Amino acid sequence: MRDDEDMRRITLAEVAEKAGVSLSTVSKVLNGRQDVSQVTRGKVERLLEAHSYRRTTRAAGEAPLIELVFHELDSVWSMELIRGVENLAKAHQASVVLTESGTRHAPAADWIEGVLQRRPIGVVLVFSSLPDAVKQQLGARSIPFVIVDPAGDPEPDVPSVGSANWSGGVAATRHLVDLGHRRIGIITGPEDMLCSLARLDGYRSALNMAGIVPDTSLVRFGDFHVEGGLRHAMDLLQSPDRPTAIFAGSDLQALGVLEAARVCGLRVPEDLSVVGYDDVMIARWSSPALTTVHQPLRAMGEEAVQMLLRLRAGEPSVTRLELATSLVVRNSTAPPATETAVR
Amino acid sequence: MRDDEDMRRITLAEVAEKAGVSLSTVSKVLNGRQDVSQVTRGKVERLLEAHSYRRTTRAAGEAPLIELVFHELDSVWSMELIRGVENLAKAHQASVVLTESGTRHAPAADWIEGVLQRRPIGVVLVFSSLPDAVKQQLGARSIPFVIVDPAGDPEPDVPSVGSANWSGGVAATRHLVDLGHRRIGIITGPEDMLCSLARLDGYRSALNMAGIVPDTSLVRFGDFHVEGGLRHAMDLLQSPDRPTAIFAGSDLQALGVLEAARVCGLRVPEDLSVVGYDDVMIARWSSPALTTVHQPLRAMGEEAVQMLLRLRAGEPSVTRLELATSLVVRNSTAPPATETAVR
Repeated sequence: MRDDEDMRRITLAEVAEKAGVSLSTVSKVLNGRQDVSQVTRGKVERLLEAHSYRRTTRAAGEAPLIELVFHELDSVWSMELIRGVENLAKAHQASVVLTESGTRHAPAADWIEGVLQRRPIGVVLVFSSLPDAVKQQLGARSIPFVIVDPAGDPEPDVPSVGSANWSGGVAATRHLVDLGHRRIGIITGPEDMLCSLARLDGYRSALNMAGIVPDTSLVRFGDFHVEGGLRHAMDLLQSPDRPTAIFAGSDLQALGVLEAARVCGLRVPEDLSVVGYDDVMIARWSSPALTTVHQPLRAMGEEAVQMLLRLRAGEPSVTRLELATSLVVRNSTAPPATETAVR
Repeated sequence: MRDDEDMRRITLAEVAEKAGVSLSTVSKVLNGRQDVSQVTRGKVERLLEAHSYRRTTRAAGEAPLIELVFHELDSVWSMELIRGVENLAKAHQASVVLTESGTRHAPAADWIEGVLQRRPIGVVLVFSSLPDAVKQQLGARSIPFVIVDPAGDPEPDVPSVGSANWSGGVAATRHLVDLGHRRIGIITGPEDMLCSLARLDGYRSALNMAGIVPDTSLVRFGDFHVEGGLRHAMDLLQSPDRPTAIFAGSDLQALGVLEAARVCGLRVPEDLSVVGYDDVMIARWSSPALTTVHQPLRAMGEEAVQMLLRLRAGEPSVTRLELATSLVVRNSTAPPATETAVR
């Protein structure tokens, strides 16, 4: 058990004393100033962390900036989130600092330095998780942060925005069942992402509800990219008892399925129905236009900023928000062809 | 003619005297501070403009930020430019502030206020032109700016980055001619954008060089979007003497052409060849993958930042840079089918 001294909040003066530095040096570290040696900075940061220091008032000089960080700016998915964040930032007279940094799991170490210097209103991270050191450093500066979680695997103590993956999987599969399909393949996302598993479970449940026993040979784990969709669809479509419909776990994978169908000489939707996931712009532009599960990416970006602003104002805020998904029916799905109708 | 007094550079002390305000008030206006009345601000700005005031040293407190401004964040085209700017900014330890503002011709009036407050390293604008007042305001603060010009219509006094539109039009058309096509349609961009006209002229020249008389009935002005491509392609493909190939002035328009072909029961490339323009990611992902003219959008973003950094360092820099375009051959083009081969 921690003693009483450790349990109460530490003051900056006490941090300065323990570190053997001046109060102004501690303040420089808190404000991300560069004119402090690495050794001193490290000492102060460790004390702040050990005592879970939290600034109770925001720094003077907070800039009207919202930080938006991605591990990867891909052209399809990121832009919708950017637009959501940009829309709401603009409505609050704030500008958006956009950064690409790190891996799927966390931004790179040097990223935090820049944030501490810029002193933004808050930070929106498009990552599955956040290292404890980063949480502590942002917390110590009273900079609120929200995760927009693509994988659906947020840590319980981090405010995050996601969407209803399981329901999306149910909606896509139920639509195909309702059209009369019985052999329905699925190419979901990577096996180590919760969103892939949630969509797959939704698919299985929808089949079970319709009295169809899921056939494990029709299940594939993809990579959310076109190439994965193409490769797995070629495999599914060349099997002797091929599916009459494929639920692709992303619109990009669905484009790969369309290409596989073209290569195999199958018409969509006459010979093969295809359902995507995300409803990014390309879903509207593909030929035929994709039936897909709408993931409200723009609204997720907007909600993340709303959550930041509530946290900053000290208002109560939910820790986890899941926005609804919905099926959008376009031209890539139809009832299955009877055997004689197939070319 | 202007008198000698007006011709020499004015000092800030003189501006203060003429405006009847203190030097510190002039400094506040220059630095975008908000604690100055609109009337005083206007008076000072007008004096700075009348005397073409240019700060010769940069303000203390310049932030390691690069401003990137679009009139429209569309998911296809903007992201490539963003990545280029982001890449190069990161290499120089700068962050990117992303803003969507204004119309195709200029950012909205309130945008400049934020820039003056943030004091960035420089500004990259994705606009065809820039109002004189904005040029003056940035110049007075010694904030360099570069235009990435989608339309190819830059003002001669503004540093800008573009790409070789005419050559792109030649390359696309020559490829189709070399495959044996004689009836080649074109759906270029809007008639009021120079890039549309440059691509159209390239198309005409390539036809003329091959001894083919351009047929004006095969020329359409589109909108660079999928819908325009679809509409014009339906029109071209339903005419009695339809083209065997269509050069679409953007990849999005090419997607519209693919959809028109599907609706008309024409196979691509067997019955119809299609060439796009831009080479954004969707060109690789469409079914079939698009033969297209590569416009080096990411490199254009990088060059714009390079140009900014040169301007900031006071190094000589070209005013207009045009990067090369190149043809990328994929699966949407083939020799024309003979009459009997058409279904």
